[in-house]
Amino acid sequence: MTALTSDRVRAVRGSAIRDLLTLTARPDVISLAGGLPAADLLPRERIARATADALTDPAAIQYGETAGLARLRAVIAAHETDRGGRAGRPVRAADVVVTSGSQQALDLVARAVVDPGDAVVIEDPGYVGALQVFQSAGARLVPVGLDEGGMRVDQLADALAGGLRPRLVHTVSSFHNPRGVTLADERRRELAGLADRYGFLVVEDDPYGLLAFDGAVPRPVAAHGERVVRLGSASKVLAPALRVGWLTGPPEVTAAVELLRQGADLCGSTLTQSVAAELLADGPWFAAHLATLRRAGAARAAAFTAAVAELLPAATCSVPTGGMFCWLEFPAGTDTAAALPRALDAGVGFVPGAAFAVAEPLPAAARCCFASNPEGELREAVRRLATVLGPPSPFAP
Amino acid sequence: MTALTSDRVRAVRGSAIRDLLTLTARPDVISLAGGLPAADLLPRERIARATADALTDPAAIQYGETAGLARLRAVIAAHETDRGGRAGRPVRAADVVVTSGSQQALDLVARAVVDPGDAVVIEDPGYVGALQVFQSAGARLVPVGLDEGGMRVDQLADALAGGLRPRLVHTVSSFHNPRGVTLADERRRELAGLADRYGFLVVEDDPYGLLAFDGAVPRPVAAHGERVVRLGSASKVLAPALRVGWLTGPPEVTAAVELLRQGADLCGSTLTQSVAAELLADGPWFAAHLATLRRAGAARAAAFTAAVAELLPAATCSVPTGGMFCWLEFPAGTDTAAALPRALDAGVGFVPGAAFAVAEPLPAAARCCFASNPEGELREAVRRLATVLGPPSPFAP
Repeated sequence: MTALTSDRVRAVRGSAIRDLLTLTARPDVISLAGGLPAADLLPRERIARATADALTDPAAIQYGETAGLARLRAVIAAHETDRGGRAGRPVRAADVVVTSGSQQALDLVARAVVDPGDAVVIEDPGYVGALQVFQSAGARLVPVGLDEGGMRVDQLADALAGGLRPRLVHTVSSFHNPRGVTLADERRRELAGLADRYGFLVVEDDPYGLLAFDGAVPRPVAAHGERVVRLGSASKVLAPALRVGWLTGPPEVTAAVELLRQGADLCGSTLTQSVAAELLADGPWFAAHLATLRRAGAARAAAFTAAVAELLPAATCSVPTGGMFCWLEFPAGTDTAAALPRALDAGVGFVPGAAFAVAEPLPAAARCCFASNPEGELREAVRRLATVLGPPSPFAP
Repeated sequence: MTALTSDRVRAVRGSAIRDLLTLTARPDVISLAGGLPAADLLPRERIARATADALTDPAAIQYGETAGLARLRAVIAAHETDRGGRAGRPVRAADVVVTSGSQQALDLVARAVVDPGDAVVIEDPGYVGALQVFQSAGARLVPVGLDEGGMRVDQLADALAGGLRPRLVHTVSSFHNPRGVTLADERRRELAGLADRYGFLVVEDDPYGLLAFDGAVPRPVAAHGERVVRLGSASKVLAPALRVGWLTGPPEVTAAVELLRQGADLCGSTLTQSVAAELLADGPWFAAHLATLRRAGAARAAAFTAAVAELLPAATCSVPTGGMFCWLEFPAGTDTAAALPRALDAGVGFVPGAAFAVAEPLPAAARCCFASNPEGELREAVRRLATVLGPPSPFAP
């Protein structure tokens, strides 16, 4: 049986991250590979209390509305309004569609907006889940670079001036996955302006924005213009197993996403949406929980970067100001993908830069997640990494 | 902003069911419209206990594997093996992919198998969620009729002999939505044989099979051949808010579905999958729960059909032997879609046949769900329906 699958499924590249998650699940491996929130910081008891409360209502286990639980849409709208709203105006509950993580929002937006052959601008290196989604949609991928200020919006502007007419521009605007950088405020304004001028849609993918170590959450791209779809997620600030994400955007797009979600999976879980609504609406608790996550993230990032500076002196490392990821660049000639099996043997996992590469192969880079492990484990992980990618030991044969 | 959405989203027809669910949510309306399991029979306390147990493990709220929780895949494999296996062989855990309801399984199979322009055979009248999925995939829909023995496999065989070469044939094999009928055993064997002979894939969509009133669960189409993907769901036998469905099928298809699920929403909820695994593995409890659902379903179906025979004598009504739906056909000239607003004013909701129509418009038909309401409510619902679609009252002006 060789012809069962469609042409388009063969255009989708498998996720190196996922394959790696399998490998790094070995108990002897400290994993810097996944994008998992810290297990020790997940608010399990608060979730258990909210779940028990929700289950006193029979409606909590019945089908729910496709666009999401009304109570959850309202609290998300309030949060998004606090963040800066849509083009400076308040976000209404009717502007919110709840999805199964922000990954589903990304997939449904791609299906709602992109026709096969359309140009889609993505960041390079880029989020693997976005590459998959746009490949699956049959898009023609156009990479644009990143620097310390996030997406090179100047490169995008040049390409547009040169005739590029993308249907959609995707950006992980804050604490980029995998690069760790944040789109500078003036670039956010400029990007929203380019969307208006050239008629494309910006997809602002923002699962990490609330994890700013200093609590200064970046003002969204969506605050600067109408042609922006914003994606958010409870996975990194509450828990992944709620499978709660959302999008806000122009009514034409949210209506199309809602229609497509009927076919995609009918609706989300009323139960986990009730829990998310309860926790996001509990202002004092949520503020204290975010403060804990930020404090822990800052301490872990500091421990990780200090260990890299000490034990991997030849590597350059991005300076984390929030989120979950550091981007390491080793000297030219390094092949992190080739080194990975030896790193796993040494008891440490990471994701080679090649997994995120669009135009350039990035053989010397690696993405490391500093958020999932406490400081001591991170230092040990870097020590193990140095046995494979660090300076040769003076005692080596 | 008029050009934000894709051409293909405009090919997808909105769900009349969904729009109706909104209308029938009015407290004064008895709804026969939805496909909702009976709220009074949902095992809420058992779910609450299993949820509290699951939440003692931190892993229950972390990300999980894309193909589903290992424990849940194993128990589903055991259930599917009991049902007849794949082509008579046992189903292994590795053959199972867990999805967000069987609707997501249907969507991902369509994306994994169907290229735009491919012929896809669907039943007429057909499941609205399937019509949406195949429209969204760009399929060319080829309807085939139904009779009391389910899909007219003889019609399909004729079309194949005449040159039709579909990529996929979709059937709701047991207690059909919306027609209520069940595919006869010899037709199951014949359909699996045609798939082998002509090289198409059968998608056997089976959310209702366990709800056979007499407990004689039909033997799956998948028991008769290799080229069958079977879709199952916990929504109708446990609770919709678990959002647990699954598929089993040829490895090429399950691998493609798993790959696409990474982009679609990464993974399901570890928490609700843990709960589903616990309940499906609790054999004595699950058997007793199914017996309760079957007994209640049989009593409700009997009450509904008796009321129809008495109060709507001109209508013909399918004879339910399981599942959730009756199919009513009123005398020629009746327009159920036009009558619906008056029915809602009279306090009863249903879905007009037109919502399920593929080739023929079916203006005189209606789908009624007998499972969601207790007997007294069902009789009252039919009484209200008769004021709109029944014989004229002798006291009418």
